[in-house]
Amino acid sequence: MSRADFDRLAEKLRNWGRWGDADQRGTLNHIGPETLKTAAATVQSGKLFNLGLNFDSNGPQPGTGGRFNPKLYATDLFTPLNPAHPSARYSDDVIHMPLQAATQWDALGHVHYDGVLYNNCKACDTLSTKGAARLGIEHLATPGIMSRGVLLDILRLKRTDRLPVDYAITIDDLDAACEAQGVTMMKGDVVLIRTGHIQRFTVEGDRAAFAGVQPGLSPVCAEWVHEHSLAAVCADNLGVEILSPEGLTSEMPLAFHMLCLRDMGCPLGEMFNLDALAADCAADGRYSFLLSAPPIPFTNGFGSPVNPLALK
Amino acid sequence: MSRADFDRLAEKLRNWGRWGDADQRGTLNHIGPETLKTAAATVQSGKLFNLGLNFDSNGPQPGTGGRFNPKLYATDLFTPLNPAHPSARYSDDVIHMPLQAATQWDALGHVHYDGVLYNNCKACDTLSTKGAARLGIEHLATPGIMSRGVLLDILRLKRTDRLPVDYAITIDDLDAACEAQGVTMMKGDVVLIRTGHIQRFTVEGDRAAFAGVQPGLSPVCAEWVHEHSLAAVCADNLGVEILSPEGLTSEMPLAFHMLCLRDMGCPLGEMFNLDALAADCAADGRYSFLLSAPPIPFTNGFGSPVNPLALK
Amino acid sequence: MSRADFDRLAEKLRNWGRWGDADQRGTLNHIGPETLKTAAATVQSGKLFNLGLNFDSNGPQPGTGGRFNPKLYATDLFTPLNPAHPSARYSDDVIHMPLQAATQWDALGHVHYDGVLYNNCKACDTLSTKGAARLGIEHLATPGIMSRGVLLDILRLKRTDRLPVDYAITIDDLDAACEAQGVTMMKGDVVLIRTGHIQRFTVEGDRAAFAGVQPGLSPVCAEWVHEHSLAAVCADNLGVEILSPEGLTSEMPLAFHMLCLRDMGCPLGEMFNLDALAADCAADGRYSFLLSAPPIPFTNGFGSPVNPLALK
Amino acid sequence: MSRADFDRLAEKLRNWGRWGDADQRGTLNHIGPETLKTAAATVQSGKLFNLGLNFDSNGPQPGTGGRFNPKLYATDLFTPLNPAHPSARYSDDVIHMPLQAATQWDALGHVHYDGVLYNNCKACDTLSTKGAARLGIEHLATPGIMSRGVLLDILRLKRTDRLPVDYAITIDDLDAACEAQGVTMMKGDVVLIRTGHIQRFTVEGDRAAFAGVQPGLSPVCAEWVHEHSLAAVCADNLGVEILSPEGLTSEMPLAFHMLCLRDMGCPLGEMFNLDALAADCAADGRYSFLLSAPPIPFTNGFGSPVNPLALK
Repeated sequence: MSRADFDRLAEKLRNWGRWGDADQRGTLNHIGPETLKTAAATVQSGKLFNLGLNFDSNGPQPGTGGRFNPKLYATDLFTPLNPAHPSARYSDDVIHMPLQAATQWDALGHVHYDGVLYNNCKACDTLSTKGAARLGIEHLATPGIMSRGVLLDILRLKRTDRLPVDYAITIDDLDAACEAQGVTMMKGDVVLIRTGHIQRFTVEGDRAAFAGVQPGLSPVCAEWVHEHSLAAVCADNLGVEILSPEGLTSEMPLAFHMLCLRDMGCPLGEMFNLDALAADCAADGRYSFLLSAPPIPFTNGFGSPVNPLALK
Repeated sequence: MSRADFDRLAEKLRNWGRWGDADQRGTLNHIGPETLKTAAATVQSGKLFNLGLNFDSNGPQPGTGGRFNPKLYATDLFTPLNPAHPSARYSDDVIHMPLQAATQWDALGHVHYDGVLYNNCKACDTLSTKGAARLGIEHLATPGIMSRGVLLDILRLKRTDRLPVDYAITIDDLDAACEAQGVTMMKGDVVLIRTGHIQRFTVEGDRAAFAGVQPGLSPVCAEWVHEHSLAAVCADNLGVEILSPEGLTSEMPLAFHMLCLRDMGCPLGEMFNLDALAADCAADGRYSFLLSAPPIPFTNGFGSPVNPLALK
Repeated sequence: MSRADFDRLAEKLRNWGRWGDADQRGTLNHIGPETLKTAAATVQSGKLFNLGLNFDSNGPQPGTGGRFNPKLYATDLFTPLNPAHPSARYSDDVIHMPLQAATQWDALGHVHYDGVLYNNCKACDTLSTKGAARLGIEHLATPGIMSRGVLLDILRLKRTDRLPVDYAITIDDLDAACEAQGVTMMKGDVVLIRTGHIQRFTVEGDRAAFAGVQPGLSPVCAEWVHEHSLAAVCADNLGVEILSPEGLTSEMPLAFHMLCLRDMGCPLGEMFNLDALAADCAADGRYSFLLSAPPIPFTNGFGSPVNPLALK
Repeated sequence: MSRADFDRLAEKLRNWGRWGDADQRGTLNHIGPETLKTAAATVQSGKLFNLGLNFDSNGPQPGTGGRFNPKLYATDLFTPLNPAHPSARYSDDVIHMPLQAATQWDALGHVHYDGVLYNNCKACDTLSTKGAARLGIEHLATPGIMSRGVLLDILRLKRTDRLPVDYAITIDDLDAACEAQGVTMMKGDVVLIRTGHIQRFTVEGDRAAFAGVQPGLSPVCAEWVHEHSLAAVCADNLGVEILSPEGLTSEMPLAFHMLCLRDMGCPLGEMFNLDALAADCAADGRYSFLLSAPPIPFTNGFGSPVNPLALK
C-alpha cells in the first residue's frame, strides 16, 4: 500500500473525537449493555476454553530481539509464617517479563505515526520512561474486555493444514468465513481470526518460524472491522496482520496496527491459542460465544498479558 | 484455634484424592457446564464491573516486607519500525513485580504445613527456585476461573461504615448475609466477601493500615465453604481471612489459607475491589452475576495478578 | 548562584575539546603514568581499606523516589551439576537494582543542561531507552579509575561530630584541610571529601535523614577542582555537593554536578564510606594513598556501583 | 579423577579452620601488608590495564541456560531536576542481570559437595532464596581483592594461536611458564592464567564456542595453588578449569571449582580479558603487577561482576 493509499484509508476509518476528545477506549465503546446481554445469551453448552499460552522460559519469544520469555524468581520457599510455629510455610515469587511476551493485548498507545497517537494525542507529550501517560493498557482494563466473541476460522475455510506463509487474508475471506460458518458480525463483537500459524510454536516448537514471515490480515481488512463496528481484533499469529518483508519495508510498516490502534482506537489481541475452541466450533457449528479477555491494568503499560476465556 | 482443633477441622474438609491423585485444580472441579450456564443466565442488565486494582508504583504494597509495587520499564520509545520510513514507531515495556502485588489469586502451592501441599504433594519435591513444579497457578488458569459469583456484603449487613479491625466474620454472618440479600449459595459458586477494608488503601491511601490488622473471615468459615461446595473464595482485604496478632501467633498461622489452599484445594482471591459492584447489587437487589477472573498462566507461579470481571 | 554567575563559572571551567572532540573520559585524562607511579609510591603500611557500602535490601535508598535498594534473586540452589552424580551442586543468582543504588560513580552522561552533555554531545541524539549512546559509564571503566587518592577530612577540620545539615563546604575549607593535613593536591588526584554525613545511614540507620538536606561541597568548589587538575571528586554523602532546598530550587539545580559532569567532564563518586580510612589517616598523619575504584563497564550506563579500595 | 582420588586430594588441600572456624575469606587471608607493599613496589611503567568485559546485551552469555546477558533499563531520561527550571535534567537506569554474567568472581558459597560448603558450613543451613547467609561475595569484598598479580601466559608458552579445546593445563605447564617468564610465585599472589579462549568471544563473537568445551586448568593444579599459598586464581576462559564432557560427567564435576572454593576457600575469577596485558608483559618481560579486582559487596551474593585493574 502506498502512503497515499494508506492515508486515504486512515482518514476514512479514523475515530478521533467520535467518543469525545478525552476518550482512551476507542472501539471498546461499541460494547454496550445490549452487546453483553447478547453475549451471555450465546451460552448453550457451558463449555469453557482458555486461549492463553503459558508464560514461562519456554515461551514463544526467540530472544533475538528486545523481547524475551518471562523470568520467574522464587523469593520465598519454605518460609515459616511464624518462626515459633515453623510447620506453616509459604512461598512467593517475582516475575520479570515484557508486557508483550506471549498472549497479549496491545494498548492503543503501543504504536503511532506522524508523531500522533490515537485521538490526536501527541506522542512527545505522552510517551516517556514512565510509559504511556495516556492510552495505557489500564484504560482497556476498566472495565476489561468482555463481549460476544466470533471465531473466523480461515484455516478451515481454506481446507488446508497450513496457510502459505505470505498469505494475506482478504475482506472476501472474512465474508466467506462468516457465510460458511453461518455467523453475522454485530456491533461490539470481538473477532478472533484463526490462521493456524500458532502451531509453528505450539506444535512444532519453532520459535524462529513463529516470529518470522507469517500469514495474517491484509491491512485493508481494517475497513471491514470499521464497517462492522467491531470492538477488537484478535488472532493466533504474532501480530494479527500479515508479517512479510513487503509489509515491513512498505511506506507504512505494520499498516494494520497503525489503522487499528492509532486511527480507529481498536485494540489488537495477539497469540491467542484458538485450536481447541475452533475444534469445538466446528463440531457444534456455533462460532459465537461469550468472550472474556480482561487486560491486567498496568498503569501506563503498552500491553498486557491475558488469558482469554471463551464460554460457549 | 488450637492445633488439635485445627487438625480435626482440616481432616473433615480435606479433599485430597477427591478428584484423583493427580488433581491440581481442587475445588475448581465443582464448576461444571451447568454451573456456567447458570452463571450466564444471571446476566440481566448487561452492566460490567472490573474488580482489579491498578498495577503501578502507587499500588497497595507498603514495601516494608519482601513484596513491592510493580516497576514498569519502557524498553522502546519512539522506535522506528523501519528506519527507512521513520514515521511509524512503537513502544515496548517490561514489568518487574511480585505475582502477589495487588488484586491476585493464590495458587494451591502457595502455602503448606507439615511439609505437604494440597493433594499430598511433598513440599520438598515440589518447591524450588523454579517455583511450584506442581500446583502452580497455571493449573488454575487452564481453563481460567469463570463461574457464578455471589457477593456477600458483610459491611452492609453490619450497617456500618467500617468493621472493627479485629472483626472475625463468622458462619452466622455469612448465613445472615445470604438471607438478607435473598441469595442461596450453589455448588461451584465463587463467593466474594466485602469487608470494606480495601478502602484503607483506595479511599484513605494508607498502605500501612491496609497491610495491618484487619477484618476478614474466621478460619472456621472454611467449613461453610466446604459444605456449600464453593469453587473459590475472594475478598476485598489483603488475605481474605482475618489478620490479627492472635491469628499469626497461633499454632497454625493463616489457618484459613491452610484449610482452603492446602486441605480443600480452594483458590483464594485477594484485594478484589468490590465497592462499585456492591453499590449496584444494593441498588437492584441482585447479588449474583457472571464472574470471570482468569489467572495468567505463569508456569510454576505461586500466584497471578487478575483483573476480575463481573457481568450482571 | 544566579544563572548568570553560573554561566560565567561554567564557561571558565569547561573542558570541551580539551582532549579532542571525541573524548568521553574528561578529567580522567589528567591521570597519566607518572600519576600512577606516584600513587603506587605512596604505599607504606600495606593497609587496605574498602570504601563501598554493602549492596542489599537494607541499603541506603529510602524507596520513596524512583531508586530502590538492590533485589537479589537466587535462581539456583542445591542444583546438581550432573544429576548422575548429585553430590556436587551449585547456586546462582540475579541482581535487580538501580545503577545508582549505593556507593557509585556517576557517568558523564548522567546530567545535562540546555540540551547538551559533556563535550558538546546533544542530549536528544545521545539519550534513549538504550541508555547513553555516548558518555556511558563504560568509558570511565576502560581502564577503570585508579590514581593517587587524597582524603580531605572536613569533619575533623571543623573539630565537630556533625557538620550543620546546611553547611556548604568552601574553597577555604578545602585549602585549610590541605594545610592542616600537610598534603598538596596534584594533577590527576582523586579527592575524597569526608563530611561525616554517611553516619546518618551507617551509624544511625536513618535513610530519610541520609537522603535529606545535607552538607557537601558548595558549587563554587568546582573551580578549585579545576585549578588543581583533579581527576575525580568523591564524598561520603549522597551527592558530593550540598543538598538543600535553596540549591534544588535555584536557577541551576545541582550546580556542582552540572559543572563537574557536564562542563568539566569530571566524574563524581558518591556514598564513599570514609570513616575507617579517615581514622587511619588521622593516626599516621598520611592522607594520600593508592586509590582503585574501577566502575563496572555497563555499556551506556548512567552510573555504576563501585567498591573503592584505598591502599596506604 | 575418581572420587577416591579426588577425596585424597581434597583432604590434603582443605583449609577449614586454618583461619578460624568463623572465617569466610579463605585464601585471601594469605594477603598481608607485606604482600600489598610488594605489589605496589612492582609498579614501574605506570601503565594501567582493565581486564573486564563490557556488561551489555551483547555479552558472552549464549542465553540457552539460566544465565543471560545484562538488561539495562533507563528509568529517567531528560527528567528535570526542578520543573520550575527545566533546563537542568538527569537520567537514571536499572540493571537486571545474573551476578555471573561476564567478568566475575565466584563467592566461596557458589558450589559445594556432600552438603557442606567451605569451612564446614552446612549447605542446608546456609543457602536459601535470600542467597548465601554465610560465604557470600560481600566477605571477599571487605576489603576487596588487591594483591600482586602474576600473569602466566600458557598460550604464549605453547607457541600457538589456539590451545586444543580439550587441553588440560598441567602443573608442569604452570612451572614451565614461571620459568620461561622469569617469575616466582609468592604467598598471597593472585595468578592469572591466559588460555586465549576468551578470543572465541572477543575476536570471533562465537558465544556457543566460548561456552562449550574449552581448555583450562586440570583439577590437579589445585595442589600447585595450595603449595604456593596463592590468594586467588583467575583465567580468561569461562570457568578457569578445563570444561569437557569427561570433567562434567566424572564422579566430581567441576573438580577444580570444588577443591578451590569448597575445600581451600580460594576465590576464582572468570572471563578476565588478558590479551592487552599479556602483550605488554611480553614486550617488557615483566609478568607481575599490582592487581586490584574488588568484588561489589552484594550481601549474600554467589558472585560479583568485576572490572579488574592491573597496574604495571
